[in-house]
Amino acid sequence: MIFEVTILGSNSALPAHGRHPTAQVLNHHDKLFLLDCGEGTQIQLSAYRIKRSKINEVFISHLHGDHYYGLLGLLTSYHLLKRMEPLHLYCPKGLKDIIDLNFRYSDTRLAYELIVHEIDCSQSQQIYENSYLTVTTIPMKHRIACCGFLFREKERDRVILPEKLRQYEVPHTSIGELKYGKDILVNGVTIPNAELTQDPPLPRAYAFCSDTIHSLDFVEQVKEVNLLYHEATFMEESAERATLTFHSTTKQAATVAKKAKAKKLLIGHFSAKYDNLQLLLDETKTLFPATEIAVEGQTYKVEN
Amino acid sequence: MIFEVTILGSNSALPAHGRHPTAQVLNHHDKLFLLDCGEGTQIQLSAYRIKRSKINEVFISHLHGDHYYGLLGLLTSYHLLKRMEPLHLYCPKGLKDIIDLNFRYSDTRLAYELIVHEIDCSQSQQIYENSYLTVTTIPMKHRIACCGFLFREKERDRVILPEKLRQYEVPHTSIGELKYGKDILVNGVTIPNAELTQDPPLPRAYAFCSDTIHSLDFVEQVKEVNLLYHEATFMEESAERATLTFHSTTKQAATVAKKAKAKKLLIGHFSAKYDNLQLLLDETKTLFPATEIAVEGQTYKVEN
Repeated sequence: MIFEVTILGSNSALPAHGRHPTAQVLNHHDKLFLLDCGEGTQIQLSAYRIKRSKINEVFISHLHGDHYYGLLGLLTSYHLLKRMEPLHLYCPKGLKDIIDLNFRYSDTRLAYELIVHEIDCSQSQQIYENSYLTVTTIPMKHRIACCGFLFREKERDRVILPEKLRQYEVPHTSIGELKYGKDILVNGVTIPNAELTQDPPLPRAYAFCSDTIHSLDFVEQVKEVNLLYHEATFMEESAERATLTFHSTTKQAATVAKKAKAKKLLIGHFSAKYDNLQLLLDETKTLFPATEIAVEGQTYKVEN
Repeated sequence: MIFEVTILGSNSALPAHGRHPTAQVLNHHDKLFLLDCGEGTQIQLSAYRIKRSKINEVFISHLHGDHYYGLLGLLTSYHLLKRMEPLHLYCPKGLKDIIDLNFRYSDTRLAYELIVHEIDCSQSQQIYENSYLTVTTIPMKHRIACCGFLFREKERDRVILPEKLRQYEVPHTSIGELKYGKDILVNGVTIPNAELTQDPPLPRAYAFCSDTIHSLDFVEQVKEVNLLYHEATFMEESAERATLTFHSTTKQAATVAKKAKAKKLLIGHFSAKYDNLQLLLDETKTLFPATEIAVEGQTYKVEN
């Protein structure tokens, strides 16, 4: 089952060095979720040939422009492209007012339904669920209300072993019970579930930790995630500036990853002052070796 | 004296084929004016190495997103770049509300002064003036309030001929009078101005005619402009669609240029349905041969 994230924007507020403000597309089982939507997101979607029609849910972490200035353009383009499917938008309070005001002045009535779900960033809440995963907010500590999003797969059914089913002549009507882990009776003989099935893949999780001052408050919540995206706006030498602007450094991101025992760390939201990102990667790796740099257009797997 | 326009965005609402929504930079005597500011304008400014700090005036034609969705990003970036100079914004009513609402939610207080001049698009008005030119609005006929902008050079002083000044032993104190066309008295002899000066270059004009249904109402106002930018969203075969959406076709743009006796026509705001723009250019040229296609990154001179 596909579970991967493609970076559309890896920079902080000021676009520079060809890097764009924050936006990511998460693909889970061929269903796309958009995480943040900085200016130029719709252009990046085209550049990387991502099917925007497959996006039905958009999550906005907070109302700093570099995380949502591309949203109105995307919404308008969906309208022009004659989108029919409803679009769900999960965002802090305020964005609906902004959208409404723009569309009032432009006299725009969207052809599709835009369903806005306002989220309370002060506490962790499950805000979305489908058959395969849940999305829970991760409260961040930033200058304004801000939250990250935790995408966690649900426990999956046990995996049926077809050759064993044939061997024991198990009727097809028993498959449902087997998937749920029950033993079954065939011709008067009890066959243990473990003989007919195997463990499903472990559920995986992706944590998108958007803008935050260094904080360990959410470590428990992102414990052992397979891929932790954490902002690393600055190098360690700018730790003071990071704190002043409610952002994190490379080593602070690494510390969170380490404490949370994340399997892998992906850093992004780089300050415009850094042209070459290798130094940021190297510094992060001194504390947390399993780190990667968020590069626009690249896809990172969420894997066990 | 430089007078030229660089195209940053040549497409209509839906970005496509690598083309961006409307934005242009007009350079007059090394002073830059931004005309419209579609999504991605600040990224285009960087891509074409245009010094954004030289822009002190921004003109927005109307409040359809493809003409202003890049503005908030630009304003925010100026703030982050520690701009000190005031920025003047000329725009229809509503944009100030939109800016204020966004900045309220993001808790942004700009470090520089943003001076918003609301314009009434229902009638032509001079809205800007400096030593060299004036800017006048051109009322457009669009689905919402919309106006173009006419940049017209002022009459310049007569050009002094230094060798003649030496020949007639004209004192330097007389230069001011000569520039204004007066004859002067040297050693009791009247020397006609025409002997000492020559005509200045003819004043030039650039008309930016943003979104409009076909209309000849503003032909008088753009009479004999040196460069007429006119939208040509559609080919002639889509004339009905053009009318329905309050846009113009190639031939309609050519008709305006012809009636106005413009020296040159520049067409833009192309529908996403056109990949190859040569057909649009060819069709426009059948009525108005002195036509060029607006190509992003290219600069077009406003010349006699």
